[in-house]
Amino acid sequence: MPVEPLAESAFIGALRGLSDRYWGTHPFHRRLHAGELDEHGLRIWAANRWYYQCQLPQKDAAIISNCPLPEIRRQWLDRIVYHDGGGLERWLRLCEAVGLERDEVLDERHVAPGVRFAVDAYVTFARTKPWWEAVASGLTEMFAGHLMQQRVADMLAHYPWIARADLDYFTNRIDKVSGEGKDTLDIVVRHCVTREQQDRAIAALSFKCDVLWSMLDAIERA
Amino acid sequence: MPVEPLAESAFIGALRGLSDRYWGTHPFHRRLHAGELDEHGLRIWAANRWYYQCQLPQKDAAIISNCPLPEIRRQWLDRIVYHDGGGLERWLRLCEAVGLERDEVLDERHVAPGVRFAVDAYVTFARTKPWWEAVASGLTEMFAGHLMQQRVADMLAHYPWIARADLDYFTNRIDKVSGEGKDTLDIVVRHCVTREQQDRAIAALSFKCDVLWSMLDAIERA
Repeated sequence: MPVEPLAESAFIGALRGLSDRYWGTHPFHRRLHAGELDEHGLRIWAANRWYYQCQLPQKDAAIISNCPLPEIRRQWLDRIVYHDGGGLERWLRLCEAVGLERDEVLDERHVAPGVRFAVDAYVTFARTKPWWEAVASGLTEMFAGHLMQQRVADMLAHYPWIARADLDYFTNRIDKVSGEGKDTLDIVVRHCVTREQQDRAIAALSFKCDVLWSMLDAIERA
Repeated sequence: MPVEPLAESAFIGALRGLSDRYWGTHPFHRRLHAGELDEHGLRIWAANRWYYQCQLPQKDAAIISNCPLPEIRRQWLDRIVYHDGGGLERWLRLCEAVGLERDEVLDERHVAPGVRFAVDAYVTFARTKPWWEAVASGLTEMFAGHLMQQRVADMLAHYPWIARADLDYFTNRIDKVSGEGKDTLDIVVRHCVTREQQDRAIAALSFKCDVLWSMLDAIERA
């Protein structure tokens, strides 16, 4: 006997319930926000997260590549445009603001193996899973808006050599994410209709939380 | 001892030399252009080629997904925008003009197994090969402009129930292709610099000619 699908509200509740697994509460992020990182720590953070940022367009293209629905493809394309059309540059600006040379970011010399493994696992997930499952993994965006607002305020307060414009990646992304969180959730709710699909969506978001958390674990050790 | 790379002109010559393998000379296309297809034949052609058209955005997204170079990704993105932003609709319009219902195109009921195998092989190629090799496979566009111009003229001459606007897919695509042919060739020449890469690019274009040719073989038998 097939298991009944969750009611929409219960499904959304289960997804949102993963918020405490989001990397907002990771000890490394707490230290970043509390102003406890030194310049070296900020550099390691920015250079390692670059590897995540620079893989996002390829991750999003993998989702489009696996998706047979033109309207979803059109919607998802905005993400590639966002990152390749300025998002990556804004992250590089932040890297430069914390004292990194552009070259040492681009050649990935500071990227810790654990960060690479986690990010690569995320891209592989997008390449190999059904598109709706990979879309669900991106729902960490539901949790991102508040954290990024806090980050801009905290970084400006604690790291005086970082200017507001250096944080354009976050300020730009805040609006984008608040919108995308809702749109992405709509897609997931509309296309994950069996209980099995819903369970896989929840597991995908859980997996993504693990990816982000592992990145910070590796950054912390680096 | 590594083999010397071909000079640029020899490399381009080898690519262009594959033009007689292009599907322009396939017997089925000859009959299409000569006005020898009946309504049924036109429908089979249009409905089968739909399967190719509708896979192109996913094929192009696979290339982007495999490409670590933002400038190439930005350039290649236009193709997805082109097909998902009107190209597919224009093909559906042609399908309707030859007497197909939209539904019977979209549900792929007329798609011959051989067409599906050939197109799927092309998408798999793009998913699994290095991005520059998949880009090279798209160089059939070098050969497409002339054929499409001829097609518009011949179809208007021979199939009076098809109006000029029904052929917007081709008229729109003619300009696009003449531009893309050059841009794509530039990418291939710039990024295939070892003899091994050049050989693989030539083989990729040869493979793509086989894909297109096989599609028409299967359509002819359908």
